[in-house]
Amino acid sequence: MKAKVHITLKTGVLDPQGKAIGHALESLGFGGVEGVRQGKYIEIDLDETDPGKARAAVRGMCEKLLANTVIENYAIDIGE
Amino acid sequence: MKAKVHITLKTGVLDPQGKAIGHALESLGFGGVEGVRQGKYIEIDLDETDPGKARAAVRGMCEKLLANTVIENYAIDIGE
Repeated sequence: MKAKVHITLKTGVLDPQGKAIGHALESLGFGGVEGVRQGKYIEIDLDETDPGKARAAVRGMCEKLLANTVIENYAIDIGE
Repeated sequence: MKAKVHITLKTGVLDPQGKAIGHALESLGFGGVEGVRQGKYIEIDLDETDPGKARAAVRGMCEKLLANTVIENYAIDIGE
C-alpha cells in the first residue's frame, strides 16, 4: 500500500519559509498572492495490505517521527 | 481561491532525505517500509476568482520559482 502524508503547520504558527516564498513571488511579478504556507509531503510504500493497519502504522510514524505535533498537523491518505 | 501544490522528485532522482526517513523509521521499529520519498506541499491563497486563470498563474509560479523542473514534478489543485 502507499500512504501519502501531508504535514502542515498549525494555524497561528508562524511560517517564515512560506512568507519568504510569498515575497519572492511578489518580486517576480506575481500579484494577487494573499498568503503562502509551506508544508511537507511524504509518500511511504508499505508491505502492509490492510488499509486499517496501514493507517494505524503511519499514524504511529507521524506521532513518533514525521510530525512535530506541538506545531504541526498531519493528514494521512491510504491508497494503492 | 486556494491552490495546493505538490512538488515531488522525478522518478530516478535520488532522494537522500527520504532514505534517511526510511532508515529512521526502521530503527524506531517500524517494519515493512519499502520506500519513502519526501516532497514539498505548498498552499497559496490567491485573489484570483477564475479557476483557469488561477491555475495558469500557479503554473507560472511553479515553473519560475517553486519547482526545479529538471529534477522535480509539480501537481496543482485549485479549490475554494
